[in-house]
Amino acid sequence: MIKFHKFTVGVMGGGEDVSRETMQVAYRLGKLIAGEGWVLLCGGRAAGVMEASAQGAKDAGGLTVGILADRHKGSASKYIDIAIATGMGDGRNYINVLSSDIVVALPGRAGTISEIALALKSGKKVILLEFDTGDVFDCYRQDGLLVTAGTPEQVIRMIKEYCNIG
Amino acid sequence: MIKFHKFTVGVMGGGEDVSRETMQVAYRLGKLIAGEGWVLLCGGRAAGVMEASAQGAKDAGGLTVGILADRHKGSASKYIDIAIATGMGDGRNYINVLSSDIVVALPGRAGTISEIALALKSGKKVILLEFDTGDVFDCYRQDGLLVTAGTPEQVIRMIKEYCNIG
Amino acid sequence: MIKFHKFTVGVMGGGEDVSRETMQVAYRLGKLIAGEGWVLLCGGRAAGVMEASAQGAKDAGGLTVGILADRHKGSASKYIDIAIATGMGDGRNYINVLSSDIVVALPGRAGTISEIALALKSGKKVILLEFDTGDVFDCYRQDGLLVTAGTPEQVIRMIKEYCNIG
Amino acid sequence: MIKFHKFTVGVMGGGEDVSRETMQVAYRLGKLIAGEGWVLLCGGRAAGVMEASAQGAKDAGGLTVGILADRHKGSASKYIDIAIATGMGDGRNYINVLSSDIVVALPGRAGTISEIALALKSGKKVILLEFDTGDVFDCYRQDGLLVTAGTPEQVIRMIKEYCNIG
Repeated sequence: MIKFHKFTVGVMGGGEDVSRETMQVAYRLGKLIAGEGWVLLCGGRAAGVMEASAQGAKDAGGLTVGILADRHKGSASKYIDIAIATGMGDGRNYINVLSSDIVVALPGRAGTISEIALALKSGKKVILLEFDTGDVFDCYRQDGLLVTAGTPEQVIRMIKEYCNIG
Repeated sequence: MIKFHKFTVGVMGGGEDVSRETMQVAYRLGKLIAGEGWVLLCGGRAAGVMEASAQGAKDAGGLTVGILADRHKGSASKYIDIAIATGMGDGRNYINVLSSDIVVALPGRAGTISEIALALKSGKKVILLEFDTGDVFDCYRQDGLLVTAGTPEQVIRMIKEYCNIG
Repeated sequence: MIKFHKFTVGVMGGGEDVSRETMQVAYRLGKLIAGEGWVLLCGGRAAGVMEASAQGAKDAGGLTVGILADRHKGSASKYIDIAIATGMGDGRNYINVLSSDIVVALPGRAGTISEIALALKSGKKVILLEFDTGDVFDCYRQDGLLVTAGTPEQVIRMIKEYCNIG
Repeated sequence: MIKFHKFTVGVMGGGEDVSRETMQVAYRLGKLIAGEGWVLLCGGRAAGVMEASAQGAKDAGGLTVGILADRHKGSASKYIDIAIATGMGDGRNYINVLSSDIVVALPGRAGTISEIALALKSGKKVILLEFDTGDVFDCYRQDGLLVTAGTPEQVIRMIKEYCNIG
C-alpha cells in the first residue's frame, strides 16, 4: 500500500509558439521525471510544453496529471492520465503550483510567468530551465527560492537535493 | 502507453458524524471501484466517507485522487495518491464533480448536497447510495440524471451501464 | 466617509423557467433591500431571479453587485452596478454566499440548491422565500440557520432581527 | 437609473514592505480615480497599496471594491465598501484582473507580478506606475498591452485615452 501522496513535479511552460528546442527539452524532462517514479503535473492541454512533457513521461511509463482550465475533461491531452477539470480558466494556475511539490518552468509567456509568481508567493521552490525572466524575481533568487538549471538532468539533481530525495 | 485519461468515479459523502454503516459502505465501494481499475476521486481529507472510500480503494491496489480544500498537500489522507491542493475551501466542490466521470453520493450534510447539486447543474450523472435527499431534486430524477442504488455492487453495475463500460 | 463594508444581502434563485409570480416577488424583494440602504448581491446574469431582483433594487435607487460565472463583464445584466467576473462557472456560487452577509433563496433548481447548501456549510444564515426544499436541510432548520419567510416584507424583518440592524 | 456596470479600475501593488513614496502615490491615484467617478477595485486587505489606494478613493467620496483572499468579509480594510470574500487565497488574483476594466500596477513582489501576468494573458491593458518589471513582459509592450506611466495624473489620462472615456 502506498502510504502518502506521490511526489509530484509541476512542469510549466508555453502552450503556443513554443520552439522545437523547448519542446524537446520538455519531452526529455518529462521522461526523466517519470524515470524517477515521480508524478508529472501540468496544465493538461494538448499543446506546447504541457503536452511534450506529458508525452515524455508517458513514454517512460510514468503517471501524468493535467489541471485543465476547461470544465470538460475531454480537453485533456491524450498523454494525461488524471484529468482535473477546474472550469476556472487561468485561475487554475494557482492550483497547478499548490499541487506541485516543486515547480519547473520552461520558456513561456504571461501564463507561465503567472505560475512562477504564484509559486514564489506561496513559498514554493521554482527551477527555471532555459527560461530567462530578467531581474523581476531577483529578491526570490536571493532567498534561494528561485534557481536556474541548464539541462533536464540538472533539474533532476536539483530536485533531489532540495527535496531530500534519495 | 495509456492513451486517454483514466475513468474516474467521484465518491462524495460526509466528513464528520458519519455512521459506522456508512463508513463500511464507503470502504466497500472504494474497494469495488479499484477492483474495476477505475480511479477513485474524493475530497481527500483524513475524515469520513472521503478517507473510508480511499482506504478501500488502496486496499484493493487502486489509485486515489483527493481534491483538497486546503492549500497544503499535507492535509491529505494517507490513502490519497494524488493530492490536488486547491486552496479554495468548499469552492473546490465544483472541481470534484467536474473531474469525475460519474458521481456517487453517500450520506452527508450540506457539503455533500452542494456536490450533488453542482453535479446535476453540470449535467453529470449522480448515483445516491443509501442517501435520501427527499424530493428537492425530483426534476433531475425524472430526467434520469439522478438515480438511487441500494448497495455498492449495484453502484458498479449502474456505472457500467450508464457509461457503457465493459 | 463610509468606514466599514456595506451590509450586503445575497439573493439567489432560478435563472431559467422562473414563474411570473417568482419574478414579481424577486423584484419586490430587490426594491425593499435597496429601500433599506443595503447592497443587493446576485449571480449577475440577465435572467430570472438575478435580473428581477437587481431591477427592483435599481428602481429603488440601490446598489447592485453581480458575481458572474463568465470571464467577461459584458455578460452582466444592465441592472448590475458592480460586475465581478470570476471566470469560474458555477464555482462562483461559493463566492456568492461568502460575500453575502445573509442569503435569501427564491425558487430555483440545482444552482440555487448548491448556493443554499454552500451557505449553510459556511455557517451563513439562509432565508427561504416561497421555496420548499423538502426535508433535506432539516438539521440546519433545527440549528436555526435555515428559516422560511412568506413575503419579501417578512424577509426584511427577519434580516433586521438576525443581523441586529436598526 | 444606472444602466450598465460602473467603470472599474483595478489597482494592484505590494501588501508588505511598501515604501512611503509608493503609499503616497497609491493614495493619490485612488483619489484621482474616485474624482473621475470610477470604481476602485483592489485586493481589499488592510495593508499596503490596497489600503492606501482605497483610502484615497474614499477621501474623495468614491466607491471601493475589495476582492478578498480570505473567506470572511471581516478581513477587509475599513476603506472598502463592497467586500467580495472569495476564500481562494491568491487564486483570487485572477478575479481581480477579470473584474477590472483596466489594471494599474504599482511596485510589488510576486503577487503583483502574478496579477500583471494574468491580466496580460487575458488581453487586459496594464499600466505600470513607478514599477520596473525588467524585460520579462517585452512582447506585451510591443503589442501595446503593457505601458508605463510616470505619475497618477498620467495614469488617468492614459485610461481616458485607452478606454475612450470623456
